[in-house]
Amino acid sequence: MATNGPLLDTLRAIVGEHGILSSAHDLEGFVEDWRGRYRGDALCVVLPRNTGEVSAVVRAAVAAGVPVLPQGGNTSLSGGSVPFEGEGAVILNLSRMRRIRHVDAANHSMEVEAGCVLADIQAAAVAAHRFFPISLGAEGSCQIGGNIATNAGGTGVLRYGNTRENVLGLEVVLPDGTVWNGLRTLRKDNTGLDLKHLFIGAEGTLGIITAATLKLSPLPTAHAVSWLAPASVEAALELLGLFQERCGAQLSAFELMNRKQLDIVLAHVPGQHSPLAEPHAWHLLVELSDSDDEARLGEALENTLAVAFDRGLVTDAVLASSSAQREALWKIRHSVSEGNKKAGVGLTLDTAVPVSQVPEFIARATAAIKAAFPADVVIVGHMGDGNIHFIPFFDFATWEAQTNRDALTMRVKRVGHDIAASLGGTFSAEHGVGRTLLGEMQHYKSDVEIAMLRAVKRAFDPQGLFNPGKLIP
Amino acid sequence: MATNGPLLDTLRAIVGEHGILSSAHDLEGFVEDWRGRYRGDALCVVLPRNTGEVSAVVRAAVAAGVPVLPQGGNTSLSGGSVPFEGEGAVILNLSRMRRIRHVDAANHSMEVEAGCVLADIQAAAVAAHRFFPISLGAEGSCQIGGNIATNAGGTGVLRYGNTRENVLGLEVVLPDGTVWNGLRTLRKDNTGLDLKHLFIGAEGTLGIITAATLKLSPLPTAHAVSWLAPASVEAALELLGLFQERCGAQLSAFELMNRKQLDIVLAHVPGQHSPLAEPHAWHLLVELSDSDDEARLGEALENTLAVAFDRGLVTDAVLASSSAQREALWKIRHSVSEGNKKAGVGLTLDTAVPVSQVPEFIARATAAIKAAFPADVVIVGHMGDGNIHFIPFFDFATWEAQTNRDALTMRVKRVGHDIAASLGGTFSAEHGVGRTLLGEMQHYKSDVEIAMLRAVKRAFDPQGLFNPGKLIP
Repeated sequence: MATNGPLLDTLRAIVGEHGILSSAHDLEGFVEDWRGRYRGDALCVVLPRNTGEVSAVVRAAVAAGVPVLPQGGNTSLSGGSVPFEGEGAVILNLSRMRRIRHVDAANHSMEVEAGCVLADIQAAAVAAHRFFPISLGAEGSCQIGGNIATNAGGTGVLRYGNTRENVLGLEVVLPDGTVWNGLRTLRKDNTGLDLKHLFIGAEGTLGIITAATLKLSPLPTAHAVSWLAPASVEAALELLGLFQERCGAQLSAFELMNRKQLDIVLAHVPGQHSPLAEPHAWHLLVELSDSDDEARLGEALENTLAVAFDRGLVTDAVLASSSAQREALWKIRHSVSEGNKKAGVGLTLDTAVPVSQVPEFIARATAAIKAAFPADVVIVGHMGDGNIHFIPFFDFATWEAQTNRDALTMRVKRVGHDIAASLGGTFSAEHGVGRTLLGEMQHYKSDVEIAMLRAVKRAFDPQGLFNPGKLIP
Repeated sequence: MATNGPLLDTLRAIVGEHGILSSAHDLEGFVEDWRGRYRGDALCVVLPRNTGEVSAVVRAAVAAGVPVLPQGGNTSLSGGSVPFEGEGAVILNLSRMRRIRHVDAANHSMEVEAGCVLADIQAAAVAAHRFFPISLGAEGSCQIGGNIATNAGGTGVLRYGNTRENVLGLEVVLPDGTVWNGLRTLRKDNTGLDLKHLFIGAEGTLGIITAATLKLSPLPTAHAVSWLAPASVEAALELLGLFQERCGAQLSAFELMNRKQLDIVLAHVPGQHSPLAEPHAWHLLVELSDSDDEARLGEALENTLAVAFDRGLVTDAVLASSSAQREALWKIRHSVSEGNKKAGVGLTLDTAVPVSQVPEFIARATAAIKAAFPADVVIVGHMGDGNIHFIPFFDFATWEAQTNRDALTMRVKRVGHDIAASLGGTFSAEHGVGRTLLGEMQHYKSDVEIAMLRAVKRAFDPQGLFNPGKLIP
């Protein structure tokens, strides 16, 4: 793209020789997602060192009419952080802005730059005897700017909420290059619209998050974990209510998987052992955590389980009696992606339904998929949030035998999305829309809502240059 | 306003004879706020029965170019729900839309119409063995639509967040009369911008909330309350940290008041008694609540207080040993408005600062006010949220002797707002902006932020007819 030589020179002047990459070789790893499902090209990757440079880069790109694509750890599951082919975008990668600016333990808050890796933030919180509760598979490489831009979920949502609920303020470079300093650290502030919520989950379509103030929580020092077999999904739902009533805010995880999911992990991930002696159709990992002492927490878990056995809700259960045992149980949960990748081809749905509708959703979606496709069904999910990763699963041979697999994928997903929608649910609970689900936005969103999304987009990015073709149809 | 005869006829046709009030006599109570500080006039008050009628009313008013003022219980402390003089607005009062449409206990959610009184919602939640945690002085008359439109705070924020954090979805009539059905009940939904956050806290400037889905919490069945005297405000801050570390999410209230505030309540509100034998400079009401058993919760409170005494953080304390005693302690806290009204003229600031800055804020603001004005200082606030109601307080005689009291009021408040701002704080933590604080918006907000607010306003209400002159400068 020789016509953009002048822009490259301008960008080089802003970020320096080492802050810009433009050869095809250097762009590898920035123009493709980590699973290798999407690939595009870019004019260049720019790596600014501070907010001022981000602002200058944005001004230059927008003046040249060139799209701007913000990028963090590039761990999106929805193709949100990779460019399209032929788009010629400037990828604005935040990796060099990774300073933890300030921790205020007494205020339970922390100010960080957008390029901070999530695991580093978690560690800095613990060093101040505080807790940043966002936790997910990619935490060793994803960056907080991306976590915020996609409102990341994960395993801590039941107790602590999504990323959105753990952000107090933002610094954002807007599409006209101006910097909005909204880095507040307040629990209450009713002065005007709460503008940060526009950028949280906007996937970079309205501006570039350059820094954030995060809400920290008291560090839980006691944990109690159980692996158990509920009598049915309906029993699992009743059990969730029982735990919520008896353990209140101490309930910090309530994760469901079906037998097929557990079998895959046991068969394909080295070193994993079944927590229960007999096979069971359904499995739950339940965790309590708090500042309580651990013996008392274990007692609360045991007492609740005793009630559950009495009511016939649970057929078998094991309690972790050491931190090593706790980690072993969690390791099974965290091994599902690895196992599924080795076992076959899973078309992962990121559905959520009202918690009360989870049994109905699972029953209907399972029946519909098995009736229409040569697939098994793997189920794993954050049941406490109603967020079920429903995974129509093909063995490799069957999958290879299919023709037109892209179209098949969308057909399979549509079946699950339709059932979720009919129960008041969503087709993207925590993975975002990116480019993968843009068609579903068109299909499921009302005209009124699409018009609102577009009106906001136009108000902030009238030229439509910020991460075009993502999120907003 | 004879020119609006046709509009009145149109509105009457929409809502029926009993759904419209237009005589001066009938408008009393709708055109003035409950404290009698603001008064305006209106073309009429319209009382629609359903969302369709709200939509039709909006279309008619906007077609006639007449402002629309949404109104709930009219309990705003910031003049947000009363019209201006000469404005000739249609007041769209939601009182007749007060149906609790649905409670889903297993999903911890509830769907309600905007005109539901907050206390009725609380009661409906308890009837389903659930808890709706928003609680504030006006709960017997304020309506949930107004609570949401102002993102109401109150005493439950420390544990449960503001109203914003307890809303799952909204139904909104937009300024063009279209209805947005965003009544989701999901814990996770990342399909597009989270548009509900635009309307929460927008004070009716972007649309009219007609219904909402609320997030319910497990019902706390055990409570433990203590009234105690911290050695200083600094000690109170340290004590807050101690409770957060030891009691985690069980800490549900941490309310501060100074001696002057307690003395006023004891002197002016019948039946109130000092909880502690000796006088103290500072007082705290601390509450733990949970699904735990009450004896254990009391034990946790006692153990933490023992540590606090050891560290010299607390000089005296009493624990409520019955629910009657608990209520008596809370009654003191809830009597501050009544006491202050009887004792003199308080110019209440609704400041919040980072929790870590509360001692500094109180020290500096107290010194500045006492140096510049013939006023005492009353302090009461939600210390756990950093939300201090700092109240420069005049006895009646001194106040009457002042000239130009409106200007004096703004000068006094500006002193406190300046100090809060210098500490990263805000001039409106929970009361909103309304018309009272519009000047402070102009003064404290950056040009970038004001431009963003106006851009959003233009995108939704290009004619500027929705609650004009409120919130957005």
